[in-house]
Amino acid sequence: MNPDIYFMRIALKEGRKGLGRTSPNPPVGAVVVKDGQIVGKGYHRLAGTPHAEVHALREAGEKARGATIYVTLEPCNHYGKTPPCTQAILKAGIKRVVIGARDPNPKAQGGADFLRVNGLEVTTGILAEECAELCRFFLKTVKERRPWIIAKAAMSLDGRIATRTGDSKWITGEKARRFGHRLRHICDAILVGKNTVLKDDPLLTCRLKGGKNPVRIILDSKLSLPLDRQVFLNKEAQTVVACNNEAPRNKEKELKKLGVIVWRLPVENSQVDLKALLKRAFNQDILSILVEGGAEVHGSFFDQGLVDEIAFFYGPVIIGGKSSPCAIGGDGPALLAQASRLSKFSFKRLGDSLLVRGYLTEPISLLSF
Amino acid sequence: MNPDIYFMRIALKEGRKGLGRTSPNPPVGAVVVKDGQIVGKGYHRLAGTPHAEVHALREAGEKARGATIYVTLEPCNHYGKTPPCTQAILKAGIKRVVIGARDPNPKAQGGADFLRVNGLEVTTGILAEECAELCRFFLKTVKERRPWIIAKAAMSLDGRIATRTGDSKWITGEKARRFGHRLRHICDAILVGKNTVLKDDPLLTCRLKGGKNPVRIILDSKLSLPLDRQVFLNKEAQTVVACNNEAPRNKEKELKKLGVIVWRLPVENSQVDLKALLKRAFNQDILSILVEGGAEVHGSFFDQGLVDEIAFFYGPVIIGGKSSPCAIGGDGPALLAQASRLSKFSFKRLGDSLLVRGYLTEPISLLSF
Repeated sequence: MNPDIYFMRIALKEGRKGLGRTSPNPPVGAVVVKDGQIVGKGYHRLAGTPHAEVHALREAGEKARGATIYVTLEPCNHYGKTPPCTQAILKAGIKRVVIGARDPNPKAQGGADFLRVNGLEVTTGILAEECAELCRFFLKTVKERRPWIIAKAAMSLDGRIATRTGDSKWITGEKARRFGHRLRHICDAILVGKNTVLKDDPLLTCRLKGGKNPVRIILDSKLSLPLDRQVFLNKEAQTVVACNNEAPRNKEKELKKLGVIVWRLPVENSQVDLKALLKRAFNQDILSILVEGGAEVHGSFFDQGLVDEIAFFYGPVIIGGKSSPCAIGGDGPALLAQASRLSKFSFKRLGDSLLVRGYLTEPISLLSF
Repeated sequence: MNPDIYFMRIALKEGRKGLGRTSPNPPVGAVVVKDGQIVGKGYHRLAGTPHAEVHALREAGEKARGATIYVTLEPCNHYGKTPPCTQAILKAGIKRVVIGARDPNPKAQGGADFLRVNGLEVTTGILAEECAELCRFFLKTVKERRPWIIAKAAMSLDGRIATRTGDSKWITGEKARRFGHRLRHICDAILVGKNTVLKDDPLLTCRLKGGKNPVRIILDSKLSLPLDRQVFLNKEAQTVVACNNEAPRNKEKELKKLGVIVWRLPVENSQVDLKALLKRAFNQDILSILVEGGAEVHGSFFDQGLVDEIAFFYGPVIIGGKSSPCAIGGDGPALLAQASRLSKFSFKRLGDSLLVRGYLTEPISLLSF
């Protein structure tokens, strides 16, 4: 195998360790290689702390002199909360820099050129697709100034999320549900509609050991939800309620007393305007939102073309029934040519269930300048 | 690898060549092995013609003396349209017989015991699961006196079979559709509801090169379909219309003029009684029916617990929309515990689409006496 690909894979593996913790920065991994041996590895662990390159160079120490560094994302070239990684690379005496994805961030980009000008050998585009995938939440916000949206649903093989009487526990198996919690861990926020909170009273936290809780965003345009819901009472995660301008002020006060944040947003078709919501989330450093439904919420996101990725879990069951609820509601397209089409998808078995993942936005398409 | 398993796999491969052609007999494969070498192979090609064992023994000729024969299904022990295979095995001087699945057919079983009594070494149960799977249509009819039912549907990843305006061509890709024709080839009959014939005017033939057309069964309880439909005019396959006793006699006459067979059947909930239909099909040597929908027909089969196997094709698309039609209609269960659950399932990529197959009836469960 091409050694560049081999070592970039290890850098990717490093980078993934930071998933869920780095916002508003991207997860990045780095590996320092000297004479074919790995002498340093690192990943970005938390916003405001050193970048992946710095960790890897520190571990390499003196061995970094004359070595090659592999980085999943172009090293930053600016003073943010930490000094530019390009400086650290120069100072360590690195001879060659291999980059996965170029940085489209206008504030931080230019690292590759800077290093070249300073006499280093620079190779870009190694496993660019996988490297873009790793930091797709970040790329989306840099390019489009709104968060990456993952639509998650658990359904029967015929697309139902419950029986006609509402029985839904559990369609998918334990392994699938655990993977669902992994998605909560890696996303900055989770979003559900009012009805889901009303009917299921979910916690919306991540139940993985050592997992991170996403911000809970509840769509409740009229602030009509009762205050006794777990998302309001449970303090493990921040809850945000998105409502319209006419929603009752006294209810807002009571929510605030519980520590809940209220976002008053414009209305579109008598619903909270999702684009305004996404802009607001972006301004709060939310780079990714896991949309967990219900069906009408999913429908609105699909109808407005706002979904970037799907994670559909299927249990080994057929429900059927003309009145059993479906995973995706909304209006839906008139023609098949207007439907949301995945450029590609992958699938895997999770215990007794099946997971299909796919992109409506190709992460690599966000790399173009 | 265990040589018994190795050679039984080859016998299975042989047997599969007969799929779609052997009804009312099962597809069976056989291999004759002498000193670790295959000296004869064969499969059952067509009802009324020699069985797999006979083909394999013929090919082996004198080399069969002292050899081992591998057969996916217990050799028959009775005079049907051909003499018993047990006699052919004895006469050929076979020393050892390795059997996959035991024959539950009361008329033909006892082959293994007969051979043992006659001094041959007999081993049973080698790859029994795969061997039962190969002849599951046959096993179902022997055990339950009704055909094996495969529910086939092509849908979006969210379980829709068309957009809200009815646009459905094509949700799945060409490779998936070709596999659908393979299912038509292996099944004795295909069944659709009246609405499918009315709206789509399908041919319901198998478009694979060298493929076999299944008998076309149309559910039309009142014989209300117009006579200009392709299933009535096209002569490539036999068409059967299932209706109730009150359906107009003159329409029946006109259909008969076109060569269409009319089955008058009892009514259940103002629909043709499916159990009566399956009994009638069984009496006509139909061992398997591919149910292709629409949603209400699928729903009826699932609601009545008549489905043995599913073949669901998913295109890389999300349709959504509260009024877009779903793959499986009917009443559906009240509780999840009552829903149709697959004991296991398999999946594979077919071009840009995904195929999920699974059993509601485990083929091997039909082997118990």
